[in-house]
Amino acid sequence: MFFASDNSSPAAPQVMAALAAANEGYAMPYGRDAIMDRVRARIREIFEAPEAAVYLVATGTAANSLSLAILCQPWQGVFCHRNAHVEEDECGAPEFFIGGGKMVLVEGEHAKMTPDALRRQIQFTGRGGIHNIQRGAVSITNATEHGTVYFPGEIRKLTAVAREFGLPVHMDGARFTNALVATGASAADMTWRAGVDVLSFGGTKNGCAGVEAVVIFDPKRAQEFEFRRKRGGHLFSKHRYLSAQMDAYLTDGLWLDLARRANAAAGRLSTGILQVPGTKLVHPTEANAVFAAFPRAAHRRAQDAGAAYYLWPGDQPLDGPDAEPLAARMVCSWSTTAEDIDRFLGLVRG
Amino acid sequence: MFFASDNSSPAAPQVMAALAAANEGYAMPYGRDAIMDRVRARIREIFEAPEAAVYLVATGTAANSLSLAILCQPWQGVFCHRNAHVEEDECGAPEFFIGGGKMVLVEGEHAKMTPDALRRQIQFTGRGGIHNIQRGAVSITNATEHGTVYFPGEIRKLTAVAREFGLPVHMDGARFTNALVATGASAADMTWRAGVDVLSFGGTKNGCAGVEAVVIFDPKRAQEFEFRRKRGGHLFSKHRYLSAQMDAYLTDGLWLDLARRANAAAGRLSTGILQVPGTKLVHPTEANAVFAAFPRAAHRRAQDAGAAYYLWPGDQPLDGPDAEPLAARMVCSWSTTAEDIDRFLGLVRG
Amino acid sequence: MFFASDNSSPAAPQVMAALAAANEGYAMPYGRDAIMDRVRARIREIFEAPEAAVYLVATGTAANSLSLAILCQPWQGVFCHRNAHVEEDECGAPEFFIGGGKMVLVEGEHAKMTPDALRRQIQFTGRGGIHNIQRGAVSITNATEHGTVYFPGEIRKLTAVAREFGLPVHMDGARFTNALVATGASAADMTWRAGVDVLSFGGTKNGCAGVEAVVIFDPKRAQEFEFRRKRGGHLFSKHRYLSAQMDAYLTDGLWLDLARRANAAAGRLSTGILQVPGTKLVHPTEANAVFAAFPRAAHRRAQDAGAAYYLWPGDQPLDGPDAEPLAARMVCSWSTTAEDIDRFLGLVRG
Amino acid sequence: MFFASDNSSPAAPQVMAALAAANEGYAMPYGRDAIMDRVRARIREIFEAPEAAVYLVATGTAANSLSLAILCQPWQGVFCHRNAHVEEDECGAPEFFIGGGKMVLVEGEHAKMTPDALRRQIQFTGRGGIHNIQRGAVSITNATEHGTVYFPGEIRKLTAVAREFGLPVHMDGARFTNALVATGASAADMTWRAGVDVLSFGGTKNGCAGVEAVVIFDPKRAQEFEFRRKRGGHLFSKHRYLSAQMDAYLTDGLWLDLARRANAAAGRLSTGILQVPGTKLVHPTEANAVFAAFPRAAHRRAQDAGAAYYLWPGDQPLDGPDAEPLAARMVCSWSTTAEDIDRFLGLVRG
Repeated sequence: MFFASDNSSPAAPQVMAALAAANEGYAMPYGRDAIMDRVRARIREIFEAPEAAVYLVATGTAANSLSLAILCQPWQGVFCHRNAHVEEDECGAPEFFIGGGKMVLVEGEHAKMTPDALRRQIQFTGRGGIHNIQRGAVSITNATEHGTVYFPGEIRKLTAVAREFGLPVHMDGARFTNALVATGASAADMTWRAGVDVLSFGGTKNGCAGVEAVVIFDPKRAQEFEFRRKRGGHLFSKHRYLSAQMDAYLTDGLWLDLARRANAAAGRLSTGILQVPGTKLVHPTEANAVFAAFPRAAHRRAQDAGAAYYLWPGDQPLDGPDAEPLAARMVCSWSTTAEDIDRFLGLVRG
Repeated sequence: MFFASDNSSPAAPQVMAALAAANEGYAMPYGRDAIMDRVRARIREIFEAPEAAVYLVATGTAANSLSLAILCQPWQGVFCHRNAHVEEDECGAPEFFIGGGKMVLVEGEHAKMTPDALRRQIQFTGRGGIHNIQRGAVSITNATEHGTVYFPGEIRKLTAVAREFGLPVHMDGARFTNALVATGASAADMTWRAGVDVLSFGGTKNGCAGVEAVVIFDPKRAQEFEFRRKRGGHLFSKHRYLSAQMDAYLTDGLWLDLARRANAAAGRLSTGILQVPGTKLVHPTEANAVFAAFPRAAHRRAQDAGAAYYLWPGDQPLDGPDAEPLAARMVCSWSTTAEDIDRFLGLVRG
Repeated sequence: MFFASDNSSPAAPQVMAALAAANEGYAMPYGRDAIMDRVRARIREIFEAPEAAVYLVATGTAANSLSLAILCQPWQGVFCHRNAHVEEDECGAPEFFIGGGKMVLVEGEHAKMTPDALRRQIQFTGRGGIHNIQRGAVSITNATEHGTVYFPGEIRKLTAVAREFGLPVHMDGARFTNALVATGASAADMTWRAGVDVLSFGGTKNGCAGVEAVVIFDPKRAQEFEFRRKRGGHLFSKHRYLSAQMDAYLTDGLWLDLARRANAAAGRLSTGILQVPGTKLVHPTEANAVFAAFPRAAHRRAQDAGAAYYLWPGDQPLDGPDAEPLAARMVCSWSTTAEDIDRFLGLVRG
Repeated sequence: MFFASDNSSPAAPQVMAALAAANEGYAMPYGRDAIMDRVRARIREIFEAPEAAVYLVATGTAANSLSLAILCQPWQGVFCHRNAHVEEDECGAPEFFIGGGKMVLVEGEHAKMTPDALRRQIQFTGRGGIHNIQRGAVSITNATEHGTVYFPGEIRKLTAVAREFGLPVHMDGARFTNALVATGASAADMTWRAGVDVLSFGGTKNGCAGVEAVVIFDPKRAQEFEFRRKRGGHLFSKHRYLSAQMDAYLTDGLWLDLARRANAAAGRLSTGILQVPGTKLVHPTEANAVFAAFPRAAHRRAQDAGAAYYLWPGDQPLDGPDAEPLAARMVCSWSTTAEDIDRFLGLVRG
């Protein structure tokens, strides 16, 4: 009953097998390995983007921060949702890599920016000329930190606002595949066809050991990425162990299968929990995370039995009236089992 | 016949097995995995440093840059050899992580700083008060970029100079174990007992897939490292895959065995090459790299037969008089075979 | 009728005379001039802080950014009001000097933080451990950007909150003297006795040509300031021309006289404008700026007659219904005349 | 007898008069003052560069650092002489403003880079691809830190090397006018016609109180400068006091007159000192600084009588054999008198 985070799940067996298989003889370092050629070709094919530049790094924070650093200048702001990972969970990594930029926070329910709120913040920013932080880039997290997703049509509306002001768009896709299978969209429709310039394409949370691709749809921005990656300590010498993971991930639709499993698990959990009297969803369950409020007594039962997840926010006391509902975040991964979910639901039900 | 770099060699089977074994069930993220507890304990035991703080990152550049960033301020200089990796091969990563510091270059044969040259540069730096870059930290690369090693007594002389000026000392040990087995020194004698404050303790080049430990002997400096690591995008969520590598590496003396093999291979290559008329060593062979000059015709034979290594410097033309000696760098790893070496020697010999 | 900003006013004659007088013979550079010794002594006396370190720079942005940079780390946040100058009007200078920090915005009416809002933001920040921006420093702007002031008792409440979390406190006193004369407080009561660690003590807006003092009440933080100032390009070689301004400013109470004149002018303007039917104050007039809304027709009359000031916000259209009130900011300085005010009031009145 | 530095001399009376004259009524802030329009026009005329962007800052370190920051990326190196001010005397300001760049040091006698040495360093830098600091910009100091000058023909040879590699060129002209009058060159011939892209055009050392112009010959680079200047805290609100200085400086050839006086004083001093037995020049006297070695006894006499100048290097002991020559730097300014020089020469002569 482990729902604390998808980043605690194991890697898929195919990914581990690919790692083992890659461990043969010598391989060119720093991304010049033969497996990387395959990865590049696969990603270009999947995204229908034959010119895209493709790079691998090991962490989502690296993927996001390096991507933002090639999209905006140190004196510019990144427009993102108040609950974006780049704002809340990276200890200022974007500001560090950008060289001192500013996250400009946009409102919206369920961690989704609305086009109007985005436009308002862009208009407000830079209104004072040289004295303000300037308008830089827009960053969209999909799936969001609250388990919701943007459909391509919603992305297009946001990027249209960005284009009004000439701003490039980044997508933080640490859970990109969860959003993709949730919406049924194609990778191209969700990204460049919807106006996204650079994508952090996550592998780690969805069944890899530690690999994220950065897909740069406009290859003119690519060379700067290479220097920033090296200088950030994110260029792997034994790069084949990144390539092998991503290669397996993208083979035979594994990436999609894993995300479908995670989303299905969240669906089962969400549906089940709503059948318990006194519960409600805090955010709609659209990808692989469930945000639900249920009675404190149920939390006690679940946690006493070893269920792992986060109260959300984290400072709600477990001591208190039994019936009072406390909100929680429960994240599913490819490896979440129906048994664990049902056992957990049983405990919640009491 | 692959001597281009130890970073192109595969990982040791034990390391890969440990990766596979770690892939079971859920594990706490961000370094709170149980394997990391074992790694921490092992490193403290090996280094006889029960208080040391131990962190893992995936690249040597990250290990070095983060280490230097906790040892010196943005307005300070890092004293290192002109041929140090931090000066020559990290695209300015230390300056980036430090926030704008300066590498102050120290001379010395075979990529080894001499105490006198170090003292001269320290004295020179900061002589002008506020107007100069200030004295920051000393960084010692062991084994060096030219395949030589410092013995503990030599380290102590350098750190004594640092101490005259109150400066902390970093050791870039991307090839630390090669230096250790070359000198027969203990890990403690080579580091904190010799005055080293922070060590980049390499795994990648010596049989891991991608892991380096940072060992901070004075734990007061540790918390800053944690923030800088996170903010640099170098904190792994699925950290167990770093831990597992390092755990296997340190089990049953594997790390020492692998380095002994690499050094022995370099010794065999070095001895063999010296028996060819017209050759000479450019630097003494003390660890796992051979820097030797041999006739151009021999280079042609070797490269035609598929031998991979770097001319050093790289811009020497393969076209030209047959007998003229050209210098080259040949790096051995744990996986270099005697057969490959002997075949290579046969080609050099002609 | 110039009310656009106090930074457009001339320097006081005494300040210019001091500049001329300082232009005799040779003077030691870089702050070692004899006039600076006098300035240091005067400031220590005025602030009853015999140990304080005192430095001069030429701009308020430099004073604020350098001050914040010695108070917080690159991975930390600065808690300030949403309308603080450091947030809104310095194009990211604090983030640049801090090396990538974050402004964490605190709410409160009339540009004043409330202790509760401050505590909430501090509690919220850093709640997620290593993953969040950490708690850094608190910055209080006094007088505020909306022309209001904090009394010493209010400052003490804010610094008490900072102290609960061990955070140092900066005061942006670009208009410090305006706040001082408005409250009748002593310089010490407004700063270190109320828990302020570092003060940006403005001269430019209040009758100097371009000089701000940074007063560091805890001299342990001073040396870092010197390196950062030099490295920021803010250490003047011909420093006497900064010293002379500040020396005259602090002689015979000139600084207080100038601020009293500016505040009195704002009071006259504020009182007068309220007597016009259909007007109201947007913020209380407590220092030298008036924020008032009055009919569009009155704006047209005033601007046609050459009155200079900013509509606030700036995007309100001058075309539209005559009677509709539009808000505006009118800033007075030491040089604002009663004649100009009365003429302006006549135009507003119509 | 003050020869310690030209930065200790007073401002010219015309400059101070202009400051006083500028202190009338209200003026637009932040460089929109009317005097700045005149300054811009004058500089464009003097440099025969009608498109040039012109900005003012108050210190040479700001002018240099901001200029370099718009010419090179954080992962690039600035090629400059080992004894350039940007390398030796700015406490890492260029690295700070560039965001972590590296000064790559070029050799050459008398603080002048030779084209061959420059080409060698450029070729060497970036040879290793992504792993090295990349080639960024070239910075030429004219007049040099050792009192020598480059003629336009010499500048052209250096910029031609830069152009071979596509690199832009900065000139640190803190003593630009001294170089100009020493060579008789026109401002255009010394800069853009010789291939210089951005000039730090000094006023402070040559009779201003504190002002330097940055002249950007290619105006496409100008907007970035504005953001960096603001964000660096170098945009003056009461900008007229910078403009007024520069305006007076450029009126009626004052700038040239002041530099001629300083150079003539250095010539008198240099010629005179060479007539003393046992003396020699350490560097040729070409601008306003004299680097000469003369007997220790003469130093003692001069210093006992109050002469101010620096032994060069500074750590030569005044105690020791009388006849031994010690090198010294003596800098003249527009205000150096023939009387002071002759008195000093008398003391040296003994």
